[in-house]
Amino acid sequence: METIYADNNATTRVAPEVLDAMAPFLAGDYFNPSSMYEPARRTSLAVADARRQVARCFGLDDAKQILFTSCATESNNTAIFGVVQANPRRRHIVTTAVEHPAVLEVCKALQRSGYELTVVPVDRDGNLDVGEFVRALRPDTLLVTVMHANNETGVVFPIEQLSRIAKQTDPAIVFHTDATQSVGKIPIDLARDFPHVDLLSFSGHKVHAPKGIGALFIRRGVPCRPTMIGGHQEEGRRAGTENVPYIVGLATALDLVTQSHLEDEARIRALRDRLEETLVERIPSVEVNGKGAPRLSNTLNISCHYVEGEGMLYQLSDCGICASSGSACTSGSLEPSHVLRAMQVPFTAVHGSIRFSLSRFTTDAEVDRIIEVFPAIVGNLRRMSPYWDQQMNRPRPGAESLLR
Amino acid sequence: METIYADNNATTRVAPEVLDAMAPFLAGDYFNPSSMYEPARRTSLAVADARRQVARCFGLDDAKQILFTSCATESNNTAIFGVVQANPRRRHIVTTAVEHPAVLEVCKALQRSGYELTVVPVDRDGNLDVGEFVRALRPDTLLVTVMHANNETGVVFPIEQLSRIAKQTDPAIVFHTDATQSVGKIPIDLARDFPHVDLLSFSGHKVHAPKGIGALFIRRGVPCRPTMIGGHQEEGRRAGTENVPYIVGLATALDLVTQSHLEDEARIRALRDRLEETLVERIPSVEVNGKGAPRLSNTLNISCHYVEGEGMLYQLSDCGICASSGSACTSGSLEPSHVLRAMQVPFTAVHGSIRFSLSRFTTDAEVDRIIEVFPAIVGNLRRMSPYWDQQMNRPRPGAESLLR
Repeated sequence: METIYADNNATTRVAPEVLDAMAPFLAGDYFNPSSMYEPARRTSLAVADARRQVARCFGLDDAKQILFTSCATESNNTAIFGVVQANPRRRHIVTTAVEHPAVLEVCKALQRSGYELTVVPVDRDGNLDVGEFVRALRPDTLLVTVMHANNETGVVFPIEQLSRIAKQTDPAIVFHTDATQSVGKIPIDLARDFPHVDLLSFSGHKVHAPKGIGALFIRRGVPCRPTMIGGHQEEGRRAGTENVPYIVGLATALDLVTQSHLEDEARIRALRDRLEETLVERIPSVEVNGKGAPRLSNTLNISCHYVEGEGMLYQLSDCGICASSGSACTSGSLEPSHVLRAMQVPFTAVHGSIRFSLSRFTTDAEVDRIIEVFPAIVGNLRRMSPYWDQQMNRPRPGAESLLR
Repeated sequence: METIYADNNATTRVAPEVLDAMAPFLAGDYFNPSSMYEPARRTSLAVADARRQVARCFGLDDAKQILFTSCATESNNTAIFGVVQANPRRRHIVTTAVEHPAVLEVCKALQRSGYELTVVPVDRDGNLDVGEFVRALRPDTLLVTVMHANNETGVVFPIEQLSRIAKQTDPAIVFHTDATQSVGKIPIDLARDFPHVDLLSFSGHKVHAPKGIGALFIRRGVPCRPTMIGGHQEEGRRAGTENVPYIVGLATALDLVTQSHLEDEARIRALRDRLEETLVERIPSVEVNGKGAPRLSNTLNISCHYVEGEGMLYQLSDCGICASSGSACTSGSLEPSHVLRAMQVPFTAVHGSIRFSLSRFTTDAEVDRIIEVFPAIVGNLRRMSPYWDQQMNRPRPGAESLLR
């Protein structure tokens, strides 16, 4: 059975060009970039080139602002702990209710160790409450960490505006954004468009590089202590021998998405819109989470009332279709998604949410196949659901009444 | 020009079997192991298999004691910071003067934040002063972190004995060892031979897996807090999407070295001994650092009086020979090695030290070539050295007088 991969917010297929670029550094050019002999210069130059390539993808001339890490989780941990350690005087952090655990759990750990934390809520569409955000900023606010695009719903936050507000309120506030889901999907010029963003995290495996490589942008002059201590690598900001193949892979992958962005984005958005419109048309009592907000063009998060997400996932998997309920990082637990709960998705729908996330490798035929099988899966599961029966025996509710 | 790679303590060539084992997970099997559909089960099973494979190489049945990280530096940072965070009551740490920066700098950072640190010295051969070690243990000692084998000299510390002493002194002391250089070179049965070792760090790229993967053994029941916070991966002990290809690569590489250890070890030791004996015979005024101590069979660290290490490295590089002065992690700085200084190598020799480190890929012909060119390089450099001239115009000193 052919696999239809519609879970690109969880991870992506490594692009063939990326594999090709990495290959020499996995084989013959295995030298330690810190070594002083000629062959090792090839690997240290490859790392330097990759750093410049990544910087250019963000409109940056100064490549030293890019730090390579092992994943977005490390980037987020380094950004938050690093800023906290560099600024011991202030003790207040602002974040949002819908961050990835790699941000939210770090903030909560700091809260347990004595920091004050303000968690800004979102509305029913997943939009950040900007009024609450403004009120959250205090004279002792050290760090604001707000994601760019949400991994579960694709909702995009106005990082440009939020970072400007933070800096206008107090230039000493450090602004970090977890851009793991937006990088490669939204062009980000850190020099021109996002001058108030101090730190930005992302990973390779969401943009068709392998799992196990990430990066952190640290704007020049922003105090951020290293969290991985040891050798002098990355100019003393992240110890540990460089993962040369994956660093080269990350740069190649970013270059590819940057070059082909406009073209891919339009095609992916058309596929997603067709998937969304057809599913909404064919399945009664569904809600598109984040519908009223700006969203990533590749993401569709849909809640089917009175169905269990796990059931849908297993039946989709039986048809060869890979999708997700909640984020892969928190699946395995059966708790409903903290993102959808923060959006106050009603309890009859929060368990029945499913995320399809497309990529440039997604085809028309794959979307056709999802459209073919998914409505029937929901129908079958609902026929087995006692709650659905109760609903059907009452006067049929519209989405309005279900929301109450 | 053919490259002769004699810097295997810096990093190693990836074994072809390792590349083969990783290949499927770099290409088609790219799924996130945390995902719930069938194809992702292949990747999560691959990670589980790799964990069991690694555990078996250390004589362990309980594979959950193995945590995958991004490198030995991360393993060391996690071990030390994790133990410190889990045990807030005790505030004293014991380490040695010759640790890798990924241990020593972490300990010094803790010292700066208020911990007490005792650094146990070594003798002229690089042996740990066991009497000093015993005296270093105090009622408030929280953690002992002592490396297994030294990266620069290859000197092996008696970890079995030291960990037993620590536990007999106080069972609450946590014992960590950085085994990055010994893993794959010395068999380590953590159940039978090292029952008192609580945590053990190592990396893939010293055993013919790629750079960017490491592991940490945490004995069941030993309190150690996660330092990378976020998703539920690695049972909540290390967040971040798993680097499946490299995890599979690490396990494959360890399996290979474990299987072929006895055979390889004898061959590598014979090559190293021949290199050592011939160089000592042909080059006047040299010292083999760690000569009087138990040493890794692949490492030769030799100090040539009145020569600069950098000069030797460049000339060796011109002949296609890759070697190292000090560790690659601290080269780039021109400070003499902290390891050789701790061994009180005399100042006329400490700058002229060079490390040749062999592997199972090293051939007889490569050793021949080093023997052919290295004595002439030292001779040429000495002819240009004013200090050597002074020595030569005096009554010719033996090594004895140079040591004073």
